Amino acid sequence: MKKIHNFSAGPSILPRIAIENTAKAILDFNGIGLSILEISHRSKDFQAVIDEAVALFKEQLGIPEGYQVLFLGGGASLQFCMIPYNLMNKKAAYVDSGVWAKKAIKEAKLFGEVNVIASSADKNYNFYPPITNIPTDVDYLHITTNNTIYGTEIFTDIDSPVPLVADMSSDIFSRPVDVSKYAMIYGGAQKNLGPAGATFVIVREDILGKVDRVLPSMLDYRVHIKEGSMYNTPPCLPIYTIMETLRWIKSLGGVKVLQEMNQKKAKLLYDTMDNSKIFVGTVEKDSRSLMNICFVMREGYQHLEDEFMNFSKANGMSGLKGHRSVGGFRASTYNALPYESVQALVDCMNEFEKSKV
Amino acid sequence: MKKIHNFSAGPSILPRIAIENTAKAILDFNGIGLSILEISHRSKDFQAVIDEAVALFKEQLGIPEGYQVLFLGGGASLQFCMIPYNLMNKKAAYVDSGVWAKKAIKEAKLFGEVNVIASSADKNYNFYPPITNIPTDVDYLHITTNNTIYGTEIFTDIDSPVPLVADMSSDIFSRPVDVSKYAMIYGGAQKNLGPAGATFVIVREDILGKVDRVLPSMLDYRVHIKEGSMYNTPPCLPIYTIMETLRWIKSLGGVKVLQEMNQKKAKLLYDTMDNSKIFVGTVEKDSRSLMNICFVMREGYQHLEDEFMNFSKANGMSGLKGHRSVGGFRASTYNALPYESVQALVDCMNEFEKSKV
Repeated sequence: MKKIHNFSAGPSILPRIAIENTAKAILDFNGIGLSILEISHRSKDFQAVIDEAVALFKEQLGIPEGYQVLFLGGGASLQFCMIPYNLMNKKAAYVDSGVWAKKAIKEAKLFGEVNVIASSADKNYNFYPPITNIPTDVDYLHITTNNTIYGTEIFTDIDSPVPLVADMSSDIFSRPVDVSKYAMIYGGAQKNLGPAGATFVIVREDILGKVDRVLPSMLDYRVHIKEGSMYNTPPCLPIYTIMETLRWIKSLGGVKVLQEMNQKKAKLLYDTMDNSKIFVGTVEKDSRSLMNICFVMREGYQHLEDEFMNFSKANGMSGLKGHRSVGGFRASTYNALPYESVQALVDCMNEFEKSKV
Repeated sequence: MKKIHNFSAGPSILPRIAIENTAKAILDFNGIGLSILEISHRSKDFQAVIDEAVALFKEQLGIPEGYQVLFLGGGASLQFCMIPYNLMNKKAAYVDSGVWAKKAIKEAKLFGEVNVIASSADKNYNFYPPITNIPTDVDYLHITTNNTIYGTEIFTDIDSPVPLVADMSSDIFSRPVDVSKYAMIYGGAQKNLGPAGATFVIVREDILGKVDRVLPSMLDYRVHIKEGSMYNTPPCLPIYTIMETLRWIKSLGGVKVLQEMNQKKAKLLYDTMDNSKIFVGTVEKDSRSLMNICFVMREGYQHLEDEFMNFSKANGMSGLKGHRSVGGFRASTYNALPYESVQALVDCMNEFEKSKV
């Protein structure tokens, strides 16, 4: 079968070993003669899975004492309302760095005053807005560290005078993170961590229990902490694949190694477009994401967009179409995407260019 | 390998064909060279999955016009707060038929007044409380049709003067349902429908939009309806297995056939305990569930409980331990459990009894 290079923005490429072991666990889990899909989440076999997933998550990200790791359902979008529900008394600060940040802001406004302290909306989010002058009279500051749609990313773990909450849906485990700088980090699993259906939440326990509002049980982080993510039936299979992916991260040598691999992959692709006469990146250089690499056709070559899309597809590239808000192309280069796939894309771009210029 | 008989209360036994096809789709989905775990939920391949799942769901349950079917994350427990969020202005009526009903009541109380119109709590929920005199001054009536922990079930689609909302987590697709009697039916997938991680919601659209409260997007049924369950990334793999399970239901001949199979299985087990000198059912006869069959040791034989548990395990029975609120044994006999498994359990009970009496 033809090799497919999977540049999907998410759900996205996962380590092959995680996929194969997931398929095995579905046919017969741990040799018990049953599928992982049909055993109790309270069984010792599944408890071992979630325990290992949490332990590896903490170990590989270097999470300090005082933080809890949760795996929940509902997606990062549910967190957009859970965060203000649990943390906002009156006012919060948000950075508007893209569509997902904007969605988080929209939900927060239902709970109190939102102070948008930085935005790149007027440049169609083509840079990461500098975060300065963080107010001290807010309950928390919310940022989105990587903007999947626009391909911008912040690589610094900023110092914040108020609890810092970060949506890291699309760059978690792509680099070392100083978790101690954050009060909470969360995200959908379906990029670097696992399949769709599970959401991770890293939360420092001391920020909870400080709001007056009455919290429904399922929206209360303290309930999920108390029950070890099993207040109700968790998304078992996604959590299993997360565990397998974390095992793979560990086997490679951890996030530092992945960071180097990601930098190498991104450099290859960014260098190619910087040296190209027909392709051009859409993002300001110091905001360029290592996870989602957006590019379009240069002026004068825009009529070739569909032709390149078809050419790349014929060469095995998948998921390259840019989001409609940006157009053009987006190569998502998550952890599990091998260097060879970026090389294949670059070869494809070079070959196409040679035929046109 | 020894045959395992899977009586787990949930996540629970699924059709083998659904399990095998899920494993195949994880290794290579539709022959596209990619796993279903690593493709976009917006891809045409996945859109076809959710479309077929919704269409089969409507077809096999005979859902009339005016209703929508959603697949969401978060579990039925999230619905416990979403229901009052979306439907309760001031007051709702609830039937207290077990632990899950009680949890639903607890969440509803955060949103308004709850009128518990029937309860079997004082008999440790060993019967389904008769529902009479439904008040007309409430926004809706909430019932739990099958009580997984206690093994009681209501088989009538009752007439209600107010919108009827039913948690059918553990008996959906086990019998024909007159959906037109309900305003909403919901439940976790992880019994008769699929793996953990997805929740189904059948909702009559005209009951929505009648509350004043501001709704966060993820908690608003109208948002999920508008976006066809894809406001955010849905639990893709669980939805795939649901589609496969619905195909299996259709291939067998539908819910009417399943109902007959379930009645036959339940009769075999209930008759065995009714004729036994050492086993006895815990539930009043006319409330006996077809899905979860609870029994204990008769007085004088209670010291044999552990011994029977070990004996049954040695004979391949799995997931038989009763919930701690009831004790003893619980055989969950969901759709996918074959008659042969119930026969194996009954043989095991008879053999054990012969050695003791």
